Amino acid sequence: MKVNGKLTRSIWNSEGNDRVYIIDQTRLPFAFATIPLATMQEVAHAIGSMQVRGAPLIGVAAAFGVALEMRRDSSDAALANAVDSLAATRPTAVNLRWALMTMQQFLKPLAFAKRADAAWSKAKQMADDDIATNEAIGNHGASIIRALHEKLLRPVNILTHCNAGWLATVDWGTALACIYKAHDAGVPIHVWVDETRPRNQGLLTAWELREHGVPHTYIVDNAGGHLMQHRKVDMVLVGADRVSKQGDVANKIGTYLKALAAMDNGIPFYAVLPNSTIDPSLADALKEIEIEERAETEVRTVIGLQAESTPGALPVLILDQKTPVSNPGFDVTPARLVTGIITEHGMFAPDQLAKTLTV
Amino acid sequence: MKVNGKLTRSIWNSEGNDRVYIIDQTRLPFAFATIPLATMQEVAHAIGSMQVRGAPLIGVAAAFGVALEMRRDSSDAALANAVDSLAATRPTAVNLRWALMTMQQFLKPLAFAKRADAAWSKAKQMADDDIATNEAIGNHGASIIRALHEKLLRPVNILTHCNAGWLATVDWGTALACIYKAHDAGVPIHVWVDETRPRNQGLLTAWELREHGVPHTYIVDNAGGHLMQHRKVDMVLVGADRVSKQGDVANKIGTYLKALAAMDNGIPFYAVLPNSTIDPSLADALKEIEIEERAETEVRTVIGLQAESTPGALPVLILDQKTPVSNPGFDVTPARLVTGIITEHGMFAPDQLAKTLTV
Repeated sequence: MKVNGKLTRSIWNSEGNDRVYIIDQTRLPFAFATIPLATMQEVAHAIGSMQVRGAPLIGVAAAFGVALEMRRDSSDAALANAVDSLAATRPTAVNLRWALMTMQQFLKPLAFAKRADAAWSKAKQMADDDIATNEAIGNHGASIIRALHEKLLRPVNILTHCNAGWLATVDWGTALACIYKAHDAGVPIHVWVDETRPRNQGLLTAWELREHGVPHTYIVDNAGGHLMQHRKVDMVLVGADRVSKQGDVANKIGTYLKALAAMDNGIPFYAVLPNSTIDPSLADALKEIEIEERAETEVRTVIGLQAESTPGALPVLILDQKTPVSNPGFDVTPARLVTGIITEHGMFAPDQLAKTLTV
Repeated sequence: MKVNGKLTRSIWNSEGNDRVYIIDQTRLPFAFATIPLATMQEVAHAIGSMQVRGAPLIGVAAAFGVALEMRRDSSDAALANAVDSLAATRPTAVNLRWALMTMQQFLKPLAFAKRADAAWSKAKQMADDDIATNEAIGNHGASIIRALHEKLLRPVNILTHCNAGWLATVDWGTALACIYKAHDAGVPIHVWVDETRPRNQGLLTAWELREHGVPHTYIVDNAGGHLMQHRKVDMVLVGADRVSKQGDVANKIGTYLKALAAMDNGIPFYAVLPNSTIDPSLADALKEIEIEERAETEVRTVIGLQAESTPGALPVLILDQKTPVSNPGFDVTPARLVTGIITEHGMFAPDQLAKTLTV
């Protein structure tokens, strides 16, 4: 999507296939800086330090990491080492492991001399596939937004939580893909951006929307229920980390509270995700998923600027170390609160989700 | 309640009745400092700058402000000027105006020579009345907590939002009065403290609870629903800014989301308040109350320390000035989500609330 008026992806390769470029997401929204990565080790560092984040993006970044290593040394030993090194950067990331296995299985049968070029083609294809999936998701979501606009005959107010935007993918995003597709097609919309404590990913969402020119307003996580009571929200669009086959949605902590408020006020609530996010082995997500307890420092500290013109953001401590903290990272929104699940295959009511698993 | 092991009120007078002392609440929880106030003007500044905050406390502080002025000049002109000056510090505070009117009506008929002593007695009586009311509230709430403990046979997990503690009153608080009374009576409890963005009043609640020795854990506002789904919350206790005669509760933004989650999980939700908070002229609070839109700077900035040992807290800017912000200060929890309203007269189901209005 656009940054400073220029179409930008979250990762792209040089013409000579000797490096990839990323946006240093640890500095957003306070600074926009791109970083060239010329070695597998530099890619591993970028993933481990969260300069790139978001499941689809880190998978693609890792694939490019393998491709960079194949330029240097295309032996089996180098391939195995690259896969191991990159997998170790984020031990729990399912998508990262999937991308690395795909690269390894693809490259293993090839002659050493062919591996470098083939690896680049494959990594670029994975990036393009991600974009195609997200565009398909976005088109399905945009048609729902358009239909709502045609009914309301005014701008559609959409509330979103966390960052399900292009920064977490190669381009377009998931929940925000629907918003970008609708906006680009001329459907008037306005987005309520949840702050999303503790990590304040709403700052990334607001930055994305501003750079692409989508009208939006930033709110604290406490505000959404009140806005829904006063009919200032027409629909809720969120991403998902994992969806069960019965349509329960595991997503960033706080999503469940917004789903409750949407249900209480008769506002449609959609989870937006690639089909690969649906886990057919999972039925009742509330019972079966153990929620990750994340680092206390996320709650204790907030990152900001000392003044508007200060170049570097700094963390401040809002809570002393003596006060106990709990920091669950995700929650589960039960299927009964979900109006629909939007994937690249279309929109499915939770009890119709089984259909998409066989597509 | 206790601070550093010593029983402390939020306001107290000198033995010679020539000054009052307050806690500078703008520096909490980062520093505990008391300030002596020797003139009406100093009291007005303390209220206006929010060194004292909370409806009951600023009412009592203003009464002491009048008493200080009567020592200097007990004329009708000085009395009228004190009332006007103090009322202007927080233009929308109903309790402040009530306290000043009470003082004026009480002092006006008295001889000038008697006014200074009488004003001190009256202000002290108002402080004592506030404490007596809060203790009665706390006793009613504590008996509900005790009953729950006797049923569960383990510590009772209570979630609270914002700061309804002793810092907002002269002592004990409202929602937290129930917690202090239960704790002091030996009922084992643990409190989940909502952060309460944008102003993070959860920091004050956590500070109060730590100083008094009540077990607690600080959480972001997004976490409470997840904790309720997993039976980690047994009851919700919140304060209130205004309650309608049908039992709708206007309170800090985000309260409604917690009430929804409590209802969805079969967890009792209580609003705790003095009877004076119930507004008999109000029926459907959701329709009739216009919610105050507060300053954007509350959302844009977060106050913290640069390091644990740094003496002064400083604000950091998390959001640039270009991003639009909305900051509704309160929301309304409809009576259908409220298990009970706890006042100094007892606990009332919302549809029984009319009874307390005639007490």
